[in-house]
Amino acid sequence: MPERLGPPREKPLFSRVALVGLGLIGSSIARAVRHLNLAGTIVAIDQDEGVVARVKELGLAEEATTDAAAGVADADLVVICVPVGAYGAVAAAISKSLKPGAIISDVGSVKASVIAQVQPHLPQGVFFVPAHPVAGTEHSGPDAGFSTLFFNRWCILTPPEGTPDEAVERVREFWSAMGSNVEVMTAQHHDLVLAITSHVPHLIAYNIVGTAADLETVTQSEVIKFSAGGFRDFTRIAASDPTMWRDVFLHNREAVLEMLGRLNEDIALLARAIRWGEGDKLFELFTRTRAIRRGIISVGQETPEPDFGRRRDGQ
Amino acid sequence: MPERLGPPREKPLFSRVALVGLGLIGSSIARAVRHLNLAGTIVAIDQDEGVVARVKELGLAEEATTDAAAGVADADLVVICVPVGAYGAVAAAISKSLKPGAIISDVGSVKASVIAQVQPHLPQGVFFVPAHPVAGTEHSGPDAGFSTLFFNRWCILTPPEGTPDEAVERVREFWSAMGSNVEVMTAQHHDLVLAITSHVPHLIAYNIVGTAADLETVTQSEVIKFSAGGFRDFTRIAASDPTMWRDVFLHNREAVLEMLGRLNEDIALLARAIRWGEGDKLFELFTRTRAIRRGIISVGQETPEPDFGRRRDGQ
Repeated sequence: MPERLGPPREKPLFSRVALVGLGLIGSSIARAVRHLNLAGTIVAIDQDEGVVARVKELGLAEEATTDAAAGVADADLVVICVPVGAYGAVAAAISKSLKPGAIISDVGSVKASVIAQVQPHLPQGVFFVPAHPVAGTEHSGPDAGFSTLFFNRWCILTPPEGTPDEAVERVREFWSAMGSNVEVMTAQHHDLVLAITSHVPHLIAYNIVGTAADLETVTQSEVIKFSAGGFRDFTRIAASDPTMWRDVFLHNREAVLEMLGRLNEDIALLARAIRWGEGDKLFELFTRTRAIRRGIISVGQETPEPDFGRRRDGQ
Repeated sequence: MPERLGPPREKPLFSRVALVGLGLIGSSIARAVRHLNLAGTIVAIDQDEGVVARVKELGLAEEATTDAAAGVADADLVVICVPVGAYGAVAAAISKSLKPGAIISDVGSVKASVIAQVQPHLPQGVFFVPAHPVAGTEHSGPDAGFSTLFFNRWCILTPPEGTPDEAVERVREFWSAMGSNVEVMTAQHHDLVLAITSHVPHLIAYNIVGTAADLETVTQSEVIKFSAGGFRDFTRIAASDPTMWRDVFLHNREAVLEMLGRLNEDIALLARAIRWGEGDKLFELFTRTRAIRRGIISVGQETPEPDFGRRRDGQ
């Protein structure tokens, strides 16, 4: 494994960390926190009894429960890791049992909506530091997580105005310990940036895979067989968790529709260039886009290996 | 290396194979043909003197030249591996020196246009078996090729009506030897299938990368940093060879614009569902698209490893 986490801390960062939602992200945090000794005790909370049972089998936490209110009691850090449509319900369920001085954080892919849902429920003396680790895979559930998921990835913090610096610093330290680079920005800017770097790419991928499946002139079996021409790249993110992504689009509506409008303008120009045989316009764009990939590779956010380094034998 | 080619043949399939264009595809064919002993002699032809020099340095062929007419003389098999916009010029250059009984093939990503460009130049007694190996990477040039590129990938043959079965069978055998699965269909159907499985995905990827680079509200540095949210997947195919792809779009115009129209209809519905908060419609699509990826994995055209199995440390 080239991705290496540091050695375990001698002293945990937090004495009690509660994770609400043990899917890909929550279970990856549990594994990293355990591996790095970032918490004295990990409490796993999930409304799905099957997930709680699996968390116990996998030994991901010292305690595991479906009772969110009981689970967060005495926690120094609570990390909400559920689909962003469920934040209001989670916040309402835990608000009365939060310990004074506790830090609440999360991992949601949208931030303005998350703040609007959570803030009203929080008692005085509890600090909300919203976070978004820009990391993931197309797999879901507690078995899909792994401790190095956040290594060399960015984590964006969007503390609302008035959040104490100490709380922000503690959350920064938590993510840095898991190998992430941390950046702070406003929730509004986050939602715009992620609309183009994550949300709209997912929407477009879902769309092309759906359209391809519905064509009457090309069979689904042909789409599958000949997918190595480029299409299969899109199927990866179009295989991401449906609940999570439904909620992302419903909760970042304006930015997603704005970015989609921009894309539509640009694709209309490309279509016109194709129709009228304007090869120079196509060539100019296709040359320019290569530079962006080189940039991503040069900052270590992508492998330089051809074809993502993937195996060609389907293994 | 899990991808294995078979042992070399005792007797070559062709005594003399001429490859016109030694980029990613042509140089991969040269390597595979050499490895498998599919040709007594390989002749490499490229109009770029630098490529010819590099082919000699790499030892990819017994003979290497910029003179297409001289290079194809006495060849039993000529494979055109240049951008599809250059086929007419290549066919005109080689037509007079083709040996009677020679088979002409190619690797172009569009087929109806290729046939229209090449057929008029071919003398009687020479047989054209157009081929399209659905394989590639985002890298270009003679150094980017490798002998297993076609292993476990599909190669589509689109012989025009009247092409003798024996010629088709010899080309089928050639690709099968390199590890490909071979399918025969009409050029028109090929162009429609590849529009959705390859051409439109590339166009969409080029478009989103171009749009992202032009935004005034999100910096290019932010797009690059936070690209692991999904965007970077698109940058791979948007880093493909600009000349090749310009030509593909100009030469498969109708099918590309038709498929793009379908995508636009579907994305308009999705945008409307987002605007009006119709979560069920989103959820239904996002669930359906997972099945397509499972299909691609189950036929061995994709790795089941999360995130394409790519490394997270940027190596």
